[in-house]
Amino acid sequence: MKAKTKNISIVLYKPKYAGNIGAAARAAKNMGIGRIVVIGPYDYDLEEIKQRATHMAADVVEKIQFVEPTPDALSQFSYIVGTTARLGKFRGPFLTPRQAAEAIVNLSQKNKVALLFGPEDTGLANEQLRLCHAVVTIPTAKEFTSLNLGQAVMIMCYEIFVASLPDVPAGEVAPRLALSSELEGMYEHIRQMLLDIGFLNPDNPEHWMLYIRRFFSRSGLLSREVKIIRGICRQLQWYAKHKKT
Amino acid sequence: MKAKTKNISIVLYKPKYAGNIGAAARAAKNMGIGRIVVIGPYDYDLEEIKQRATHMAADVVEKIQFVEPTPDALSQFSYIVGTTARLGKFRGPFLTPRQAAEAIVNLSQKNKVALLFGPEDTGLANEQLRLCHAVVTIPTAKEFTSLNLGQAVMIMCYEIFVASLPDVPAGEVAPRLALSSELEGMYEHIRQMLLDIGFLNPDNPEHWMLYIRRFFSRSGLLSREVKIIRGICRQLQWYAKHKKT
Repeated sequence: MKAKTKNISIVLYKPKYAGNIGAAARAAKNMGIGRIVVIGPYDYDLEEIKQRATHMAADVVEKIQFVEPTPDALSQFSYIVGTTARLGKFRGPFLTPRQAAEAIVNLSQKNKVALLFGPEDTGLANEQLRLCHAVVTIPTAKEFTSLNLGQAVMIMCYEIFVASLPDVPAGEVAPRLALSSELEGMYEHIRQMLLDIGFLNPDNPEHWMLYIRRFFSRSGLLSREVKIIRGICRQLQWYAKHKKT
Repeated sequence: MKAKTKNISIVLYKPKYAGNIGAAARAAKNMGIGRIVVIGPYDYDLEEIKQRATHMAADVVEKIQFVEPTPDALSQFSYIVGTTARLGKFRGPFLTPRQAAEAIVNLSQKNKVALLFGPEDTGLANEQLRLCHAVVTIPTAKEFTSLNLGQAVMIMCYEIFVASLPDVPAGEVAPRLALSSELEGMYEHIRQMLLDIGFLNPDNPEHWMLYIRRFFSRSGLLSREVKIIRGICRQLQWYAKHKKT
């Protein structure tokens, strides 16, 4: 079962552009996070927010909490994670987005958690970082560390969503690979077929079979693909037999 | 050492909005990927692309390859990974972004790899997905699976960047925790100080010390924090001593 994420809020501290608020709302909605808080003295163009969020995230936009930047703007939260690009000397420990997402999902099961993002141009100042229980830094190339605000929100929402999934997400997405017994049946079938058509030397059929095995094992065959290959083998054998007569 | 990513290209198939091309270029540059290919018959507003990319990604924008949508538009690549939101019946196997990123980074060490994104409204059609060696689906909430193109590019570029990092990224970011010996020295110091100020019962000092230990172990103390705490203890002891006299 997916862990709940309803106690998680994306908190934008003094964002400058309404478009980025909209992009954050869309990203949050995509990743199943419904709460956005905007701390700031600005009047934002609500139409621009809605447009960037798209109508699919209209409910998230409507529920955005606009809060004055007072000292207790964050007082409703029990765990606050700040985001920063700057690896200053006294600002650690820094979590990776993956580590932070795990902590956030875990703690949010019983606590209100805020994921705090600073203004586009300056990021969070020390004054806000001091309030944070943990600080996360999204890894970037050294040449260009400044992420677009909406993009940064997306990366964190994505990591939180992945962390909230049951432990075996890969197994849900990836289809079932063929069983070893299915593969062996197929190899035997291929071997027989290649002998039938005179491709393999009957004195040493394994020489080429090894290459064929290597090729197929590398590609990770699915059960239904094994069936298709055996179907082709059957057809080739039928063809070879009828051609000889 | 970070794995190289220079053989990886972000390929946008018939994107509709110049702004999204710019956002993709910025995301790519943030994550150390320098090559963008745009396949499409459209005339894009280069100024809009540049604006969204920001001047920091100007070099990526300048090197964008604009290619006609001919059947051999992708012929320069050896491994093509498609992205799709639609989990159609016959389109698997689907990789998670993390699985795809690992495969992309590995294969790109010796091959040119394309990461292919479809148009904003429809995504990749079966015609393009057929050309793909693997297909990746970014996990989303069920209610709203359609990602903004720039956001989708960012998630994949981020996963590729993380996959290209050396195997112990956590260790590089997280500072060194205090050694057990440092912690024990600190606990002994705290115990002595709490005895000095009469907080602990000399007959059973361990009772409260256990709570204190539990609290500190949960927070994962850093070496420098241990030093600070011991500094406070020393100061308290000095104060307690001078107060008595």
